[in-house]
Amino acid sequence: MTAPQLSVVCVGNAIVDVLSPAPEDLIESLGLVKGTMRLVDPAEAETLYGRMGPATEASGGAAANTAAGLALLGVPTQFVGKVADDQLGKVFAHDIRAVGVGFDVPVAERGSTGRCLVMITPDAQRTMSTSLGVAGELGPDDIDEELVSAARWTFLEGYLWESPTARAALDKAASVARTLSFSLSDPMLVGRHALDLRRFCADHVDLLFGNEEEIKALAGDQEAESALAVVAEYCETVVMTRSEKGSLVAHDGAQLASPAHPAEAVVDTTGAGDLFAAGFIAGLHRGLDMAGCAALGAQCAAAVIAQVGARPSADQPPFNTSRR
Amino acid sequence: MTAPQLSVVCVGNAIVDVLSPAPEDLIESLGLVKGTMRLVDPAEAETLYGRMGPATEASGGAAANTAAGLALLGVPTQFVGKVADDQLGKVFAHDIRAVGVGFDVPVAERGSTGRCLVMITPDAQRTMSTSLGVAGELGPDDIDEELVSAARWTFLEGYLWESPTARAALDKAASVARTLSFSLSDPMLVGRHALDLRRFCADHVDLLFGNEEEIKALAGDQEAESALAVVAEYCETVVMTRSEKGSLVAHDGAQLASPAHPAEAVVDTTGAGDLFAAGFIAGLHRGLDMAGCAALGAQCAAAVIAQVGARPSADQPPFNTSRR
Repeated sequence: MTAPQLSVVCVGNAIVDVLSPAPEDLIESLGLVKGTMRLVDPAEAETLYGRMGPATEASGGAAANTAAGLALLGVPTQFVGKVADDQLGKVFAHDIRAVGVGFDVPVAERGSTGRCLVMITPDAQRTMSTSLGVAGELGPDDIDEELVSAARWTFLEGYLWESPTARAALDKAASVARTLSFSLSDPMLVGRHALDLRRFCADHVDLLFGNEEEIKALAGDQEAESALAVVAEYCETVVMTRSEKGSLVAHDGAQLASPAHPAEAVVDTTGAGDLFAAGFIAGLHRGLDMAGCAALGAQCAAAVIAQVGARPSADQPPFNTSRR
Repeated sequence: MTAPQLSVVCVGNAIVDVLSPAPEDLIESLGLVKGTMRLVDPAEAETLYGRMGPATEASGGAAANTAAGLALLGVPTQFVGKVADDQLGKVFAHDIRAVGVGFDVPVAERGSTGRCLVMITPDAQRTMSTSLGVAGELGPDDIDEELVSAARWTFLEGYLWESPTARAALDKAASVARTLSFSLSDPMLVGRHALDLRRFCADHVDLLFGNEEEIKALAGDQEAESALAVVAEYCETVVMTRSEKGSLVAHDGAQLASPAHPAEAVVDTTGAGDLFAAGFIAGLHRGLDMAGCAALGAQCAAAVIAQVGARPSADQPPFNTSRR
């Protein structure tokens, strides 16, 4: 079970994405907020699905996407999350193992694998409605302390914050992690829990990822640089992703601005932040400096937004250079 | 159940495709024949899936793809095929209804929805391994004579030929269809059943679709034009698709050659023949002449090969011009 060469353990919701193009007015008429994620119950998911056009299914989940990116970059990675014994659970397990990520959390005996309805508007933004299913049953018992403490980095997704059992799993992982990395996941979630999240970051998080809106919500500050400076007071390294404006990294008392990587096309932004994080951590794994990590993160994000779905394929740069 | 304005009934296997890029040597090492479809049992499907890279899932099935294309072109269409009460069955039913195809065959109470493992080699060719599941249980009881006889065209896929119950369903549909269209589906299948298929075509088929290899196998003739001439003796209209060489249509004692439509890119040829048939029949529905039908078929095929998956999206030509 323990992997002597394990570099990263990623903990998050095991989710299969259901991706479909959607006109702007559909998002509005469904009362959804573009660019955000909302939890829905199975009945509401059914209703929303009925309003969506024909879709494609592809494995997703924020930390799982990061894990897939890390493995494609050659970093030994394990994923911790929960699927059910159903067709979508088999799809999730197949896809994450097929890129080389270790995945051996016991399958839930009852219930359904989580799915996320992803509506992609013509501006390539994604609006997500997640029916967690058994992913929401992830709890402290699923966290193997030996595994986590053996890993150089532990990466947790913020989406886990709102489930009490998953919260306990986060706390357990945080207590034994060697270097803790956390992704803020969603601006509205950060807004709802800013105080608790600040405490968690101050107590545990070494490497924090968030986009501009999320970092602002966490800092309670409406200006990017000053918000970043506030958060940098309690996390060693803070990475703020800013879409086409690139990234800002706060580390060692300084802020480093890096450009976005030119994307071939912007088709679907699903997974952009997850893959930026994968590239950044892979950069640390390779011993790069902050600028090098930010550049690799930007390259990974550019690769994933040029296609539909949250995981890049192994045959495009920078992933094709690192496969055995 | 009867639709007064119904134009086309498509009968075929209800299948969800599992699509993954694959290197040439994987096809070889698995003993598969590139560009063909092979039926596999669930255990073999499991083994093959385990050798495939990360995949995406998208609704497929030859006649179902044709039905989706027809509906996207504004032609009132119904699909007849069998899914199970499982996640992939819900995906199939959602996707086909979401493009406007009528689909109300009762769901099978036991078993699994069929799936097709599609390995896409760098040359954009697809090699398919199909685990039929309950799709293979389609039988004569699923053919509603009133529905079929109300439709202007009935479109049958050749893949149904090898299941005895599905064969009986084909015969029943053929006996009441007003205009019968048949697609040969696969050269190896045609080779195995050439004599029976010739008899079926002579007795029932008004509009036959096949690629060059399939028509040659049916005619027992190794030259395209003369093979087409042989088959044209017993079908009123025969459409031979020839990939980048365009199409040859035999009708009314003459052969008409039409060019391929320039494709933006050739990414995945899955569904090319199915969508050519959709465009051709939609052309007949619009009252176009043979050249117009072949041109619309070529345009539909070009749209589907420029993307991964067997069904085009509604926002690309020629589909975007025909939506309400």
